[in-house]
Amino acid sequence: MNPLRILPFLAISCIFTSLFLSLGPNPVLASSNALSLKPRPILEDQAWNQESREGVDKKIEIFDEIREEEKRESEEEERERVRLYCESWRFAVETNNLQSWKVVPIECGGFVKKYMSERGYRSDLEMVAEVAGAFARNVELGQDGMDAWIFDIDETLLSNLVYYEENGFGLELFNGNKFDEWVDLAEAPAISPFLKLYEEVLEMGFKVFLLTGRSESQRSTTIHNLQNSGFQNWDRLIMRGAADQGKSAVFYKSEKRMEMEKEGFRILGNSGDQWSDLLGSSMAIRSFKLPNPMYYIP
Amino acid sequence: MNPLRILPFLAISCIFTSLFLSLGPNPVLASSNALSLKPRPILEDQAWNQESREGVDKKIEIFDEIREEEKRESEEEERERVRLYCESWRFAVETNNLQSWKVVPIECGGFVKKYMSERGYRSDLEMVAEVAGAFARNVELGQDGMDAWIFDIDETLLSNLVYYEENGFGLELFNGNKFDEWVDLAEAPAISPFLKLYEEVLEMGFKVFLLTGRSESQRSTTIHNLQNSGFQNWDRLIMRGAADQGKSAVFYKSEKRMEMEKEGFRILGNSGDQWSDLLGSSMAIRSFKLPNPMYYIP
Repeated sequence: MNPLRILPFLAISCIFTSLFLSLGPNPVLASSNALSLKPRPILEDQAWNQESREGVDKKIEIFDEIREEEKRESEEEERERVRLYCESWRFAVETNNLQSWKVVPIECGGFVKKYMSERGYRSDLEMVAEVAGAFARNVELGQDGMDAWIFDIDETLLSNLVYYEENGFGLELFNGNKFDEWVDLAEAPAISPFLKLYEEVLEMGFKVFLLTGRSESQRSTTIHNLQNSGFQNWDRLIMRGAADQGKSAVFYKSEKRMEMEKEGFRILGNSGDQWSDLLGSSMAIRSFKLPNPMYYIP
Repeated sequence: MNPLRILPFLAISCIFTSLFLSLGPNPVLASSNALSLKPRPILEDQAWNQESREGVDKKIEIFDEIREEEKRESEEEERERVRLYCESWRFAVETNNLQSWKVVPIECGGFVKKYMSERGYRSDLEMVAEVAGAFARNVELGQDGMDAWIFDIDETLLSNLVYYEENGFGLELFNGNKFDEWVDLAEAPAISPFLKLYEEVLEMGFKVFLLTGRSESQRSTTIHNLQNSGFQNWDRLIMRGAADQGKSAVFYKSEKRMEMEKEGFRILGNSGDQWSDLLGSSMAIRSFKLPNPMYYIP
């Protein structure tokens, strides 16, 4: 026989076989007794049990997948709930609706860390500095050199983020001694958008007052830190003296502003990360609140 | 010939054919002259050109993919930049750093719409109402019925979101006539967390003053709207009279608060969506700023 004669037969068979195989794994073909025509009840029972077992396994698998999916969804919902809560908490903090809070709520630890460490905090600071700069450029200054701008120091000109990174970003209760140790290092870097604003308002002819809750005992460290971070030519650095200890920040700072006004200064701008830097008496024409979701000073 | 004899031969051929086919589309087999053993230089050159062309096409495809990826990345970066900007813009608005803005920045249209329409606005309102309620419960009231709570109306007790949904969520310049038409419909729904607070402070024994920028000509419509939305038993509804037209909101509202104080009322709480509801003279012991990124009233 000419072997080429088999060729068309072979080709057609192959097409069918390939098509058959292409339908995917077939349980009948896959089972060991598929090609046997002789009845083998025991093995068939096993096969049936096997199939039934596979069916149960498949159902368990699907059930697990559904449970997994539900878990993912509820975790996603929980994350969204926490995010919304923390956004609203931050709104309440920054608008001064909340007041008198001691620590960041435990569920917002991650939220505050993310905000402070990633681009949110930086972006907010830049916007506040920009808005404050626009006001400074547009306000009319007198010719007598009595127009003043007040800057708070901590979280306004100098950043203590390095300290707060190591102390839970506000999750931990404030520890005065530990914080003073950090201040004494005089290593706090400048908040650059506010170093820029500081230099701009000086350039425009404002008198610059630094009004801080830091105590007189920290004067030389503070001057050292400020100068090392690029701040120069302020008019006065006002710190808590012996008589100011124990006063609330809002009261102490209001008193100091009142004294400035009595000397004839016009307080056009004020900038601080706490409402207690800005509210009270002798308020500035425009006050600029910097963000700070890490701590609250009354 | 017994046709079954072909079977082993057929099976082996089929296995090889299937294996061969399973290697995927083969360019040699696919080309029309693959099975011809006769050299056909012109066609082979075409095949070579074809392959080379395919190489170029592949490179173009990879290049397009890289460009597509870069585009996606830069779009993603752009979205992130806009989101950061709008978050910071909102911070500047809600802390009153910005002041005097007329419309939502065009790039923040989507941001404000999303905030107002999804869960953010609702969540913020609930938090403010909760914080205000906690203060109300903890402050000590006199026995003389002279403790007062002030509520603003628009975006504080009543929501004009339906109107702003149809007018760009603050992207469009404020149109007084169009807004008055909406007010005259008296269809503004209650802001439910503040309806709850309203009822709570009444229950506690506060006198409730409604202090609104709406004009006296809208009194009956406003009463109708308030009552239909569930507000009852307020002490006074104070609206702009003829003499108050043209005054800034902060001045008009300060004057009205001063009058309350002169009558002997103690203003413990105040709540409004504008800083001009809250700042000025005769300020409340505690002021509660509700969110509003849609408009600014000086």
